[in-house]
Amino acid sequence: LNPFLPLLLLIANIAAAQNGIVVFQSDFGVKDGAVAAMKGVSSSVSPNLRLYDLTHEIPAYNIWEASLRLEQTVRYWPEGTVFVSVVDPGVGTERRSVVLKTRSGHYIVTPDNGTLTHISLSLGIGELRSIDETVNRRQESDSSYTFHGRDVYAYTAARLASHTISFEQVGPALPDSVTAIFSQPASLTGNIIAGTISILDVQFGNVWTNIPSGLFQQLNIKEGGLLDITIKHHQKTVLQATIPYHTTFGKVAAGQPLAYLNSLMQLSFAINEGDFAKKFKVASGSDWTVEVKPAR
Amino acid sequence: LNPFLPLLLLIANIAAAQNGIVVFQSDFGVKDGAVAAMKGVSSSVSPNLRLYDLTHEIPAYNIWEASLRLEQTVRYWPEGTVFVSVVDPGVGTERRSVVLKTRSGHYIVTPDNGTLTHISLSLGIGELRSIDETVNRRQESDSSYTFHGRDVYAYTAARLASHTISFEQVGPALPDSVTAIFSQPASLTGNIIAGTISILDVQFGNVWTNIPSGLFQQLNIKEGGLLDITIKHHQKTVLQATIPYHTTFGKVAAGQPLAYLNSLMQLSFAINEGDFAKKFKVASGSDWTVEVKPAR
Amino acid sequence: LNPFLPLLLLIANIAAAQNGIVVFQSDFGVKDGAVAAMKGVSSSVSPNLRLYDLTHEIPAYNIWEASLRLEQTVRYWPEGTVFVSVVDPGVGTERRSVVLKTRSGHYIVTPDNGTLTHISLSLGIGELRSIDETVNRRQESDSSYTFHGRDVYAYTAARLASHTISFEQVGPALPDSVTAIFSQPASLTGNIIAGTISILDVQFGNVWTNIPSGLFQQLNIKEGGLLDITIKHHQKTVLQATIPYHTTFGKVAAGQPLAYLNSLMQLSFAINEGDFAKKFKVASGSDWTVEVKPAR
Repeated sequence: LNPFLPLLLLIANIAAAQNGIVVFQSDFGVKDGAVAAMKGVSSSVSPNLRLYDLTHEIPAYNIWEASLRLEQTVRYWPEGTVFVSVVDPGVGTERRSVVLKTRSGHYIVTPDNGTLTHISLSLGIGELRSIDETVNRRQESDSSYTFHGRDVYAYTAARLASHTISFEQVGPALPDSVTAIFSQPASLTGNIIAGTISILDVQFGNVWTNIPSGLFQQLNIKEGGLLDITIKHHQKTVLQATIPYHTTFGKVAAGQPLAYLNSLMQLSFAINEGDFAKKFKVASGSDWTVEVKPAR
Repeated sequence: LNPFLPLLLLIANIAAAQNGIVVFQSDFGVKDGAVAAMKGVSSSVSPNLRLYDLTHEIPAYNIWEASLRLEQTVRYWPEGTVFVSVVDPGVGTERRSVVLKTRSGHYIVTPDNGTLTHISLSLGIGELRSIDETVNRRQESDSSYTFHGRDVYAYTAARLASHTISFEQVGPALPDSVTAIFSQPASLTGNIIAGTISILDVQFGNVWTNIPSGLFQQLNIKEGGLLDITIKHHQKTVLQATIPYHTTFGKVAAGQPLAYLNSLMQLSFAINEGDFAKKFKVASGSDWTVEVKPAR
Repeated sequence: LNPFLPLLLLIANIAAAQNGIVVFQSDFGVKDGAVAAMKGVSSSVSPNLRLYDLTHEIPAYNIWEASLRLEQTVRYWPEGTVFVSVVDPGVGTERRSVVLKTRSGHYIVTPDNGTLTHISLSLGIGELRSIDETVNRRQESDSSYTFHGRDVYAYTAARLASHTISFEQVGPALPDSVTAIFSQPASLTGNIIAGTISILDVQFGNVWTNIPSGLFQQLNIKEGGLLDITIKHHQKTVLQATIPYHTTFGKVAAGQPLAYLNSLMQLSFAINEGDFAKKFKVASGSDWTVEVKPAR
């Protein structure tokens, strides 16, 4: 027997405990103490956790955007990372509180209200469990009904990330199905792709569609090739234009528009060093549709 | 003698050092490098600290709000957590720089200018010490007079959190009394509770009063019971309404008002999926008063 | 041979890995998942890193401000800290991607587009290396051209901070010269100092000039001494005033202007508990000049 074994185990244990990362998302903003209260509860479970933020600037109650922001980021974090997403217009009502383990080994602690729409499709449902609040709820919080983010989600996430509980101890397993917000996928008919504008890259005014690169490549557009694009809001045309496709912004002059594949490999529109969404008054959502075809 | 003792001590030491959490609050915003400079100074004391933010969006010089945000969050962090709060209109003048150890074992490093008003009452004054700047001040900072947050507070907090100094080494003990901002506590007369609006939950427009749940319970209002509320600004009535009391937002329809107990167990007003403060033009402060009684 | 040597090395190794701090700056804002995606990539390289933010509110494409914010903060962090700065209007074009090791032992990972203007002068160029993207680029990112911050910079920074690669393994050494944005240094002629307004302390409206304390001291102004200041925009006078010099804001009444040395020891203008920039309509940039002399 290796006489160092107990020590090695202890060290391995310290090292393992330190892998515990929790990433928080919400619509709380950062002007008050709500986010810090959640992190405090997590740190009280284990001060060794590493606590990070996805964003807390999800527009109030916008579950669709919460779902997309998870889609945009979860895959870049290491396996085992625990996410907490609290955009929860139904707090205190009967919606389920769940932890999703994706097939990629990431965990997402959230109300099951549509927040898992994109991730459940892309990273897949490995296993879904209901949070058993009789054990996974901060002590002394019984009389508070309105801050599940702090009393249940941040607490459960920290227990999971710190290996205080196993995934099984979260609560009973559920069928492999989450509440999803319906959206029409992009489609190709002849040489025209029809899609929607899923979201804006708000900081820069870039417009992200739901057209994946695989579909776009079927149009056989080369670097610099021209596209006819039509953007409509409720069937009314907002923009009709012919713009070049480029791999990167710098290929067009400042102020000029282009189509490109964004960091999630979806077709997107931008103005180099400008704001496409603002200039052309374009927003996002299922009522914003887009048609793309090769220019003649 | 256990031959592993030195090693065990070393490991224990590494583990202990990792418990060091510092949480920062200020009115600096996050558009420039001020917050990062504070964290850099703390990391230079010990790179193993875990540095988090409460908020840096306290309105400029608003000591009252700084005090309330500490009240809203400190208790959720583990014992031994060190807070730095820098809302400091008097920087460079004679106000005391102190570290409060609360009875709950939390530390708060701050100018003693009213920032400790709420915490000193709720968590209690365990011990109060003046910061001895002859030792607890960043080297090479003698000629800078305007950034105590970086040169004294972040530095002292990191030394305390990393066990570089003991609490006694912060500086001389002070009498158990802090500078406090006066505010009238809520009171019950007959079946009417009179209170003030301490603060807004700005992100959602909820209105938080200073009426604690214990006082409110004396009205014997059941779930769904109706309240007559009157909100006044400088004695002028801004809102008179009859609204139901519920434990959670989802019990009323979207767009409908309700009274509820917030996450600090104080009576509050909200509109489900709406903005109560904006709709009824309500703000916060000692000049905003509220009366609550059971509806007939 | 010490039988504990392997263990000690292991422990030292764990401890060393924990010194790895990465500090992020960008113009991405924090409303979407871009910053979190960068941190995820870094955590995937090593979950033990400590990841902090300088700011993500650099105005879009403003390289000058990015350079100044680094100047304002890098020096306060411990030796060995790795900074990532991504303000990159030229993403995807031919500008170099570099890592600067300053003479102070800090690392900055950035496009070499002017971002290193101030730091290269103040902390000095220790060594400059080009990032070899054939090895220092996240796997599976070959087809994405627009998010170097995530795929190259955050990835390389994490590898460097976690000692996965040595500084030499970043890529080939470059000559000791960075792309710099020209700006006229402040100068003294007779008893008049001419300088520019480098930046605003945006949160408080303080105005920071490029006049260093060493130059200012040659005017021999004592605490409370009066200065004649003239601020011009494109040669047109915006403000002419006589204001006192003080070491700290509290020496003048609330609402009164003063000159002082800021936290970087440069001459600055402020209104105690007010907003100098807003009140006098002053902004920053090389077209904003200032003249300072002792009042008669």
